[in-house]
Amino acid sequence: MKWNDLGEFGFIRRITSGRVISRDHVVIGPGDDAAAWRPEPGSLCLLTTDMLIEGIHFQLGYFEPEQLGHKSLAVNFSDIAAMGGKPRDAYLSLGIPVERLTVAFMDRFYAGVGALAGKWGVNILGGDTSHSSVLVISVTVTGSVAPDRVIGRDGASLGDRIFLTGHIGDAAAGLDLLLNRPQHLDRFADTLVKAHLEPQPHLEAAALIARSGKATAMIDVSDGVIQDLGHLCSGPGLGAVLYARDFPLSPALRSYASLTGMQLPDAALTGGEDYCLLFTASRKDEEHLRRLFSESGCPMYCIGSMSESGRIEIVDQNGRHRPVTGTGWDHFEKK
Amino acid sequence: MKWNDLGEFGFIRRITSGRVISRDHVVIGPGDDAAAWRPEPGSLCLLTTDMLIEGIHFQLGYFEPEQLGHKSLAVNFSDIAAMGGKPRDAYLSLGIPVERLTVAFMDRFYAGVGALAGKWGVNILGGDTSHSSVLVISVTVTGSVAPDRVIGRDGASLGDRIFLTGHIGDAAAGLDLLLNRPQHLDRFADTLVKAHLEPQPHLEAAALIARSGKATAMIDVSDGVIQDLGHLCSGPGLGAVLYARDFPLSPALRSYASLTGMQLPDAALTGGEDYCLLFTASRKDEEHLRRLFSESGCPMYCIGSMSESGRIEIVDQNGRHRPVTGTGWDHFEKK
Repeated sequence: MKWNDLGEFGFIRRITSGRVISRDHVVIGPGDDAAAWRPEPGSLCLLTTDMLIEGIHFQLGYFEPEQLGHKSLAVNFSDIAAMGGKPRDAYLSLGIPVERLTVAFMDRFYAGVGALAGKWGVNILGGDTSHSSVLVISVTVTGSVAPDRVIGRDGASLGDRIFLTGHIGDAAAGLDLLLNRPQHLDRFADTLVKAHLEPQPHLEAAALIARSGKATAMIDVSDGVIQDLGHLCSGPGLGAVLYARDFPLSPALRSYASLTGMQLPDAALTGGEDYCLLFTASRKDEEHLRRLFSESGCPMYCIGSMSESGRIEIVDQNGRHRPVTGTGWDHFEKK
Repeated sequence: MKWNDLGEFGFIRRITSGRVISRDHVVIGPGDDAAAWRPEPGSLCLLTTDMLIEGIHFQLGYFEPEQLGHKSLAVNFSDIAAMGGKPRDAYLSLGIPVERLTVAFMDRFYAGVGALAGKWGVNILGGDTSHSSVLVISVTVTGSVAPDRVIGRDGASLGDRIFLTGHIGDAAAGLDLLLNRPQHLDRFADTLVKAHLEPQPHLEAAALIARSGKATAMIDVSDGVIQDLGHLCSGPGLGAVLYARDFPLSPALRSYASLTGMQLPDAALTGGEDYCLLFTASRKDEEHLRRLFSESGCPMYCIGSMSESGRIEIVDQNGRHRPVTGTGWDHFEKK
């Protein structure tokens, strides 16, 4: 199948057909000027949007098209998770370099999108498609959350415990492998490389945290723990103390670090793209949360507490306090 | 102000500050993982998204930054109008070529966005920002509409009248001027050129049509009347007969056509980017609609009727039926 034979409207029919799997709330689906849906009674609507650009956010050299489709949706699901919500519908706008990418490539991209959407019962309700010089993927995902369960970034208080729902640093090490150390790819393919190429949104953990009503603030780790934790230190003078011995670092990351001289734990705190959840809760609720997570089988790690230092400090294995090296990712920083 | 001094988060603060002008429904605004809002009680939610890419959808050579900001939002408002809805919130994702475009340019871009958003009471509730090689603008707009007032594309019947809410062909002629005939720019700057650079969404007409409850189908004219009318001919065997004498062609377009040899009316029917509304209504409701439009001061033109020919025909000034030349815009067509 060639682009010219298919045409824009043929392509849109091809990629939207069969993608509405949860019809109850959908009044008008793909193919109209806008989608129309019935909001969940008594719930808030959530909306997040993320743009991925070839050459900036990803290279086609190391992504399978299915993985790229998966990740484009996963990073948005992760933002909905970070509000304590569940995703309902997704919209994909694509700029496609039709001279370079085949219809078969985009079919595989949509297979990756469809697999993750199907897993979480999310519809593809629309989007936009055009020609472009590089592949541009702009995804919007809507979701819902009960008004008394929505979790913002602003609620953390002095003394609150700081939790993570998964390992950190694996994805950044995976990217380093892909870009700089192809000779070690095989050894870490199932762990570090997969963490970068196929991140899983922590929607089960998000549901657990939201249902508990115990989180005071939450964010997903996209720019690195340090930078994202900085967004939770919004109160006057609010800072954090993190305990190096408690950082959830995978065995694979530790062996990769000894192989390459990568500095742990700092590289794991600033790497980004972990897409686990970072949240705070009152000290008195820690035990309750531990029990909930343990019953569900989801991991949860306490890595420190909110402090009044106004900055983020690390207590190393020898009990010494020190600032962290580097902060995280800024798209307009000088590289 | 330089990009490096401002940083990604500084830029996001700069562009979102003061952009929430209608707070009642907003629970969590810009700066969190997702926006959260209370849906309008008893209403449907609407969502549309459009992506504009430099070099494909626009050239920076002839757009003032304010106009580009205006148009990016206007085309999405137009999609919400085409459902009979009103826009509530907007989200802008931008890929910015920071080596080439200044912070001042983007400030002017946002001034254009802000002016149109302000005019219609729409909030900027979020988005995404990154570095890119060409300017990429991906806009998502949500809106609302009463469940018994939403207007899709599928409801037109044999004999329904076909209406337009504004002139057609001006925007396409304006683009032709900008690209090919700079020597005539001044003469048509306020009409044709402005129609291309600063299209106005027909939200007043949309509200009128939705309130009347009389439209059987509606779409906004983005790909040209013929192609967009084709989307309303979805029933089996449904076609349309259009009367050339009734096409709303502006005096400016007519003089531009005689100057350049542009073929009217066909060029006006296939040019695209008019962003007026194209809708159908039963013959018996025509008088009622005419009265409503006349009282409001909004224009409305009847250009033909739905037929059972299965195709779109034009009846020319001499009463002869003929097919139309060309169909409209396809992003994957061979150029």
